[in-house]
Amino acid sequence: MTKIVIVGGVAGGASAAARARRLSEDATIIMFERGPFVSFANCGLPYHIGGDIKERSNLLLQTPESFKARFNVDVRVMNEVTHIDRNAKKVTIKNLVDGNEYTESYDFLLLSPGAAPIVPPIPGLSNPLTHSLRNIPDMDKILRTLQMNKPEHATVVGGGFIGLEMMEAFHQLGIKTTLIEMADQVMTPVDREMAGLVHEEIRSKGIDLRLGVALESVEYQLNPSMASQDSGESDEHQHIEGELTLSLNNGDTLVTDILIMAIGVRPETTLASQAGLQLGELGGIATNAAMQTSDPFIYAVGDAVEEADFITGKPTLVPLAGPANRQGRMAADNMLGRSESYQGTQGTAICKVFDLAVASTGKNEKQLQRENLVYEKVYVHTASHASYYPSAEVVSFKLLFDPVSGRIFGAQAVGKDGVDKRIDVMAVAQRAGMTVEQLQHLELTYAPPYGSAKDVINQAAFVASNIMKGDAKAIHYHDMDQLGDEQIILDVRNPGERDNNNHIAGDINIPVDQLRDRLNELPKDKEIIIYCQVGLRGNVAYRQLVNNGFRARNLLGGYRTYKFSQA
Amino acid sequence: MTKIVIVGGVAGGASAAARARRLSEDATIIMFERGPFVSFANCGLPYHIGGDIKERSNLLLQTPESFKARFNVDVRVMNEVTHIDRNAKKVTIKNLVDGNEYTESYDFLLLSPGAAPIVPPIPGLSNPLTHSLRNIPDMDKILRTLQMNKPEHATVVGGGFIGLEMMEAFHQLGIKTTLIEMADQVMTPVDREMAGLVHEEIRSKGIDLRLGVALESVEYQLNPSMASQDSGESDEHQHIEGELTLSLNNGDTLVTDILIMAIGVRPETTLASQAGLQLGELGGIATNAAMQTSDPFIYAVGDAVEEADFITGKPTLVPLAGPANRQGRMAADNMLGRSESYQGTQGTAICKVFDLAVASTGKNEKQLQRENLVYEKVYVHTASHASYYPSAEVVSFKLLFDPVSGRIFGAQAVGKDGVDKRIDVMAVAQRAGMTVEQLQHLELTYAPPYGSAKDVINQAAFVASNIMKGDAKAIHYHDMDQLGDEQIILDVRNPGERDNNNHIAGDINIPVDQLRDRLNELPKDKEIIIYCQVGLRGNVAYRQLVNNGFRARNLLGGYRTYKFSQA
Repeated sequence: MTKIVIVGGVAGGASAAARARRLSEDATIIMFERGPFVSFANCGLPYHIGGDIKERSNLLLQTPESFKARFNVDVRVMNEVTHIDRNAKKVTIKNLVDGNEYTESYDFLLLSPGAAPIVPPIPGLSNPLTHSLRNIPDMDKILRTLQMNKPEHATVVGGGFIGLEMMEAFHQLGIKTTLIEMADQVMTPVDREMAGLVHEEIRSKGIDLRLGVALESVEYQLNPSMASQDSGESDEHQHIEGELTLSLNNGDTLVTDILIMAIGVRPETTLASQAGLQLGELGGIATNAAMQTSDPFIYAVGDAVEEADFITGKPTLVPLAGPANRQGRMAADNMLGRSESYQGTQGTAICKVFDLAVASTGKNEKQLQRENLVYEKVYVHTASHASYYPSAEVVSFKLLFDPVSGRIFGAQAVGKDGVDKRIDVMAVAQRAGMTVEQLQHLELTYAPPYGSAKDVINQAAFVASNIMKGDAKAIHYHDMDQLGDEQIILDVRNPGERDNNNHIAGDINIPVDQLRDRLNELPKDKEIIIYCQVGLRGNVAYRQLVNNGFRARNLLGGYRTYKFSQA
Repeated sequence: MTKIVIVGGVAGGASAAARARRLSEDATIIMFERGPFVSFANCGLPYHIGGDIKERSNLLLQTPESFKARFNVDVRVMNEVTHIDRNAKKVTIKNLVDGNEYTESYDFLLLSPGAAPIVPPIPGLSNPLTHSLRNIPDMDKILRTLQMNKPEHATVVGGGFIGLEMMEAFHQLGIKTTLIEMADQVMTPVDREMAGLVHEEIRSKGIDLRLGVALESVEYQLNPSMASQDSGESDEHQHIEGELTLSLNNGDTLVTDILIMAIGVRPETTLASQAGLQLGELGGIATNAAMQTSDPFIYAVGDAVEEADFITGKPTLVPLAGPANRQGRMAADNMLGRSESYQGTQGTAICKVFDLAVASTGKNEKQLQRENLVYEKVYVHTASHASYYPSAEVVSFKLLFDPVSGRIFGAQAVGKDGVDKRIDVMAVAQRAGMTVEQLQHLELTYAPPYGSAKDVINQAAFVASNIMKGDAKAIHYHDMDQLGDEQIILDVRNPGERDNNNHIAGDINIPVDQLRDRLNELPKDKEIIIYCQVGLRGNVAYRQLVNNGFRARNLLGGYRTYKFSQA
């Protein structure tokens, strides 16, 4: 009769508990959770604040009672495991309601403590109007502030998942919102030029987006007394709970009514570290492929652990729900005598930003550079489904690959429709070890409402294969500013597409459909840098020029990628 | 200087022409099309009839002029290639406008003639109110009939892609519609129980769906004279072009105002066959992986050819746009000295049926049985994205696999959201040679608006892996009627879910959350056949019973699959 003790009752812990019971009816399973809730929908919290998810109760997927009834798991909320005695195989628990301490023995211990919001050492952060968002009590505090303070202005610090979702929630509530991000882009899983599409979307909704700026200090002004409406005093911009003045590192100040700190999370390792379990270089609990820590009787899963990166095999920290759930299931298998191996994390992720989805899988350029991996990249901007069928939207897609082997390093996509699908396709192809050559042959669903006979992915694979075979010679947006006298820039779009200065300075314009008759206008002693709107006509022109003896390169992703790299 | 002659100017032919020009600037490329249009959106035709695609011009993707300007292709519409002289490497062409005949030589000939609607030998079919739909002139004729006859009732024969799309088009135009299908299901790429979900959708829209019925004869009544409204004569149900009386093989008759025959297509092989090119057993032009016919100077692509089936390697006929386009591109590569291989067709397909999408890839059960392949199947019915986020819809998913190796044979899905994505994921996984074991580890995009931490595919893979490992013992909907005295049926849903007789006759009901306390109500000497709504709670109950020493099986897909197998 195995006794399994689980620390943490959300994604990984809850999955492990349910799986363990399905495998063994006679195991004793105790799940400790220091918070008041287990198995809540933490990914749904911003959407309840913003009003998309109406009922708070919808976020509570399970209760201690439902866990008991279905899985015979002894769930103890408001019980914090404070100490692990590895020799005695015992944990000490503090009941947070009555303060009592007690111990439980275990045969196997599973740590699923999650991650905690990073609180940077910024003066003045500790005040009633500054929040982070990680769990139901955090959400309830934010809701209470909204209710009490009726904020007219909100500030979100951090342009990651939670930051972007909270920005959208505030906007949806009619609150003017500022988003502050220290980096030069939001949503760091994608590269800068892809994030440009997101920046435009954010700005188009009236958000005050400030990139490359950091919060330096916060000053809290409590309202000393409230204006008396009866006496005719103005109560404009006056908030029951006061307001905050934010000082930024560029000298700006900003007055705001509520502040959300969402700059990231760090693994919760206090318990593991006190118990002498090995931590990794990135600060997470070290685990092997069985999700075992350095103590073979202690497993760990979820946001708190370092797992293997799928591409590099090196340890990585990926605080996402999917891996946590699967790791929990596997840890339960292994604690009960199975032999399951976690197969590495690609970091597949997606975020809704107003009408856009932005998603990625695998490695981005910044990471590939850090790993010193030689890569090539291609861009495709094409319709989410047949363009002649209503509601087609542009999918902007980036594919990163090894230009020699064709190995897939990563993919990124931004758009209003069909983004999740394309990144899922890439996540599967990458995990299966497919090459870009093989991507050409993918046979995906096609009917006008759903796709195209040549899907986004096929098209990107064609472009990538053309480069690998030498059928295309690429130039990238970041090279366009470094051209010299030995090059000329040729825009092959139609003149109307160049209106409002929408073209690259110093170029000449010959529409692709006139090119064959106007070749004599082009010099053979210079390299011709071709571009069009998205790269497709540019390729047609490129092939024509090269087959006619010109030297040329084609701007991948065309003017669209070039433009958004600066947005 | 290579001279390439292409027969047929739609998907495969047009792709080949464009690719050939990109590869070679000096090749002579002539494309013959016997119809008046090239490169039109044949998949969009029903949607223009139904009004979703407003402008007819949106269906005309390219014109002879645009092809000439961009690709320097000599496009000759209304020119039919009538003969191939393989020895002389010449084709004879008839100009359908002036009737003149002439010849053109070729170095390489590409046949992309497509497929033609099957016209069954039914008496009376030849009349002005009976149509098929394959090209723009067909569409224009249907539109003219709609305009002239103002039909109140339409009949579609055939429940495949075109039949279903035309049914929806008529319904959208406010025309009462009957759909007649000889088989016991529509949309034969999916199996009968999956089609049941589609049948319900079709009936819920008020369509008169008649399954297992065939059209036997058609009688055309021309209106001898029209009622004179001025004289007060009733003109109700009176149509300028008359009406049809349909006789069905079950003795029913049906009066209708327009009839669409959409029972399928057959490869256009007249030209190939006259030229002595080898045809396959299925009646298509035989090709090798290079898309070469039995004459090495003649290639063939698209709906007219037999290509290799991805799963069995045997020849197959798959008249779909995606393969046609990719084959055309490859044929051009090979004609111009490259060496590309077509890698087999999975038959990935999708169809919109009102609010539903129905899609599949790989082999279905009927095909697997025909191939004598040993297979197992699992069903999952789960939310398209996090169920607590608005607009989640049930995805009904079926996975077919080899129970020993875990090889993926095929997948089918039906639902209102996220169906294309799941079948695309499966199409990639199948092509990559992944097993169901590996599907468990897929790391797909997850945020509440887009997916679930455990996606549909992960869940199906868990169920399949449980079966392969012996952790689950399955029973299927079609076995439920063959149970005997040595079995009892246990419904583990809550009593309310059984209302309106929504349960299996002769069962007993113990909700899963009460099961542990009521085990004594169950016999140990009988096999307990467990079911719930979709199979998930059934699995929890199954594990509980088996771990407590009972013999049991769980109904895969639960009551939902059972019920829709009869719809």
